[in-house]
Amino acid sequence: MTRVAILGTGLIGASIGLRLRSMDRNGLEIYGFDRYGDVGRQAQKIGAIDRVVNSPQQAAEGSDLIIIAAPVLAIRRLLEEIAPVVSEDAVITDTGSTKAEVLRWFDDYLPRHPGFVGGHPMAGKVDQGPGAADPALFEGARWVISPPVRTSQRAIDTVLNLIEMMGAESMIMDPDEHDAYTAAISHMPMLAAVALFSMERASAAWPELSLLASSGFRDMTRLANTDAAMSYDIAVTNRDNTLHWLDRYIESLREIRDRLADQQAEEDFFKLLAATEFEYDAFRHGKVGREEKGPDTDTSFSFQDFIAGAWVRERIQDMMKDSEDRMRQIEERDRTRRDV
Amino acid sequence: MTRVAILGTGLIGASIGLRLRSMDRNGLEIYGFDRYGDVGRQAQKIGAIDRVVNSPQQAAEGSDLIIIAAPVLAIRRLLEEIAPVVSEDAVITDTGSTKAEVLRWFDDYLPRHPGFVGGHPMAGKVDQGPGAADPALFEGARWVISPPVRTSQRAIDTVLNLIEMMGAESMIMDPDEHDAYTAAISHMPMLAAVALFSMERASAAWPELSLLASSGFRDMTRLANTDAAMSYDIAVTNRDNTLHWLDRYIESLREIRDRLADQQAEEDFFKLLAATEFEYDAFRHGKVGREEKGPDTDTSFSFQDFIAGAWVRERIQDMMKDSEDRMRQIEERDRTRRDV
Repeated sequence: MTRVAILGTGLIGASIGLRLRSMDRNGLEIYGFDRYGDVGRQAQKIGAIDRVVNSPQQAAEGSDLIIIAAPVLAIRRLLEEIAPVVSEDAVITDTGSTKAEVLRWFDDYLPRHPGFVGGHPMAGKVDQGPGAADPALFEGARWVISPPVRTSQRAIDTVLNLIEMMGAESMIMDPDEHDAYTAAISHMPMLAAVALFSMERASAAWPELSLLASSGFRDMTRLANTDAAMSYDIAVTNRDNTLHWLDRYIESLREIRDRLADQQAEEDFFKLLAATEFEYDAFRHGKVGREEKGPDTDTSFSFQDFIAGAWVRERIQDMMKDSEDRMRQIEERDRTRRDV
Repeated sequence: MTRVAILGTGLIGASIGLRLRSMDRNGLEIYGFDRYGDVGRQAQKIGAIDRVVNSPQQAAEGSDLIIIAAPVLAIRRLLEEIAPVVSEDAVITDTGSTKAEVLRWFDDYLPRHPGFVGGHPMAGKVDQGPGAADPALFEGARWVISPPVRTSQRAIDTVLNLIEMMGAESMIMDPDEHDAYTAAISHMPMLAAVALFSMERASAAWPELSLLASSGFRDMTRLANTDAAMSYDIAVTNRDNTLHWLDRYIESLREIRDRLADQQAEEDFFKLLAATEFEYDAFRHGKVGREEKGPDTDTSFSFQDFIAGAWVRERIQDMMKDSEDRMRQIEERDRTRRDV
């Protein structure tokens, strides 16, 4: 009999449990622990775990595979609590959104244990808790693993096998590399959504603004609904990277602001919008991945190429004409003023 | 026989045509014109219009209702072109995303015409063109109208009736008010998505970043796929408002950046995240609208109230403890340094 312990039975933990249960070949028993009793009981009720236990130690002791699915800072406390009872053969993994700190904590509490593989499934949902759990949550998602150097091949294989059972695709990454990338593509955008929503919400015009909000605004701010305990833990355990990308984003916004403000550079502004539309479209249709390692094509981007070209040329001619009209009007006005 | 002219038969124009067709009571003929012949022919093929004509004048002349569904700057040119042939009784509306400039152009080209009602349906899609048209596109959406003072009640009623046929909800707004609000809730967020996506795309790490991008990132950057001609026109015809909100957004990002950077203010940072999560949740569940005109509750927000309170208190205690630990470590390090 293989015993799995899931520590933290919210959305992620319960989804893992449901998926394991859906492919049960009888030899599996799942123990669950959650700091909030209701969450554990609900996970049991929906069939994500077989048994709720009252402490992380009870779940971990005697388990072959221990999955820690909690907000990052809670992982530290759980590792500290289970360290004395974890068997030497146990395989331990987590699903925390940052990896460098988690690996350091593991070294602190279980410095010689060969069974740890840090993990991060790149999947989620706005709704939280076991009520939102879904055995298909990880299908097609990337799942990063960061095993410390001393980790045994057996432990790595076990976690790779788990990821495959979840329907996800594994990627091995250095924990620092992982944290740098996720700061850019996930953690900073999450705070950008918080900054956007909280700004709009604080506006005196919010009653009107919220009436006019369409799906575009909802999409852009959805991450502001991330569980605060999760987003806080992510930000403070990946602080430097997140700050770096916040600074770059502010820079990028300032650049677009300046292009819009400069009425002499309207063609540049349009080119930026057209290039971004084109690149986004490629991204949306799956043009991603490490294969595009060639020379950076950003600066040499020829946006005349990407469509027949006719409307872009026409457009730019129109713009030049508009600009000339505007210049003429401004000159006219200046002349009038001088005459007065 | 009532004749409707749709000038611009892309996503919006063709969706309006399909919807009108779906409720046809025999007395309706729809003429369509599009600057790009293919777009017009495709709209006809899917049944959104009855006849494609080769010039805006041919469509407008003799039509009872003229709907201009084109990017904002194209509306100007179309108004100029149709002005000589529009009948005195015709009702004219548009679907442009900004309204103040459109109303000015109408005054320029048809200064005494009593039939114009500026319009803006708050609905859209990432996919563009008549191929993406959907008769249900406007169902439940807000549709702002901005009639000039001289516009007849008959013209206003006609457009209100059109909006009702589309399944949308009309809202009357002053054009300047409309532009100020949409800059905040739609136009600036669109440029923020462009700034975010183009920054990530330009990063040397893009091959890795794009692999790690999850639904959150896709949601946040979706608006970067807006047709460049549309987004350009919106930004330059609502420049001052959009710049104002870009500045405010940069300010909001800087504030969140500073809160994250300040390790002495972690409790404040957590409070901001928790308050935003709470407010977003209310927004997501429909707590919107003009009814909340009371005293601004933002500053007096008591986030202890919004959940049992236990986990928040526990959380903050943990944080204080973490901070104390960190302070101790820093002091320790400083002491060690001094000793060296």
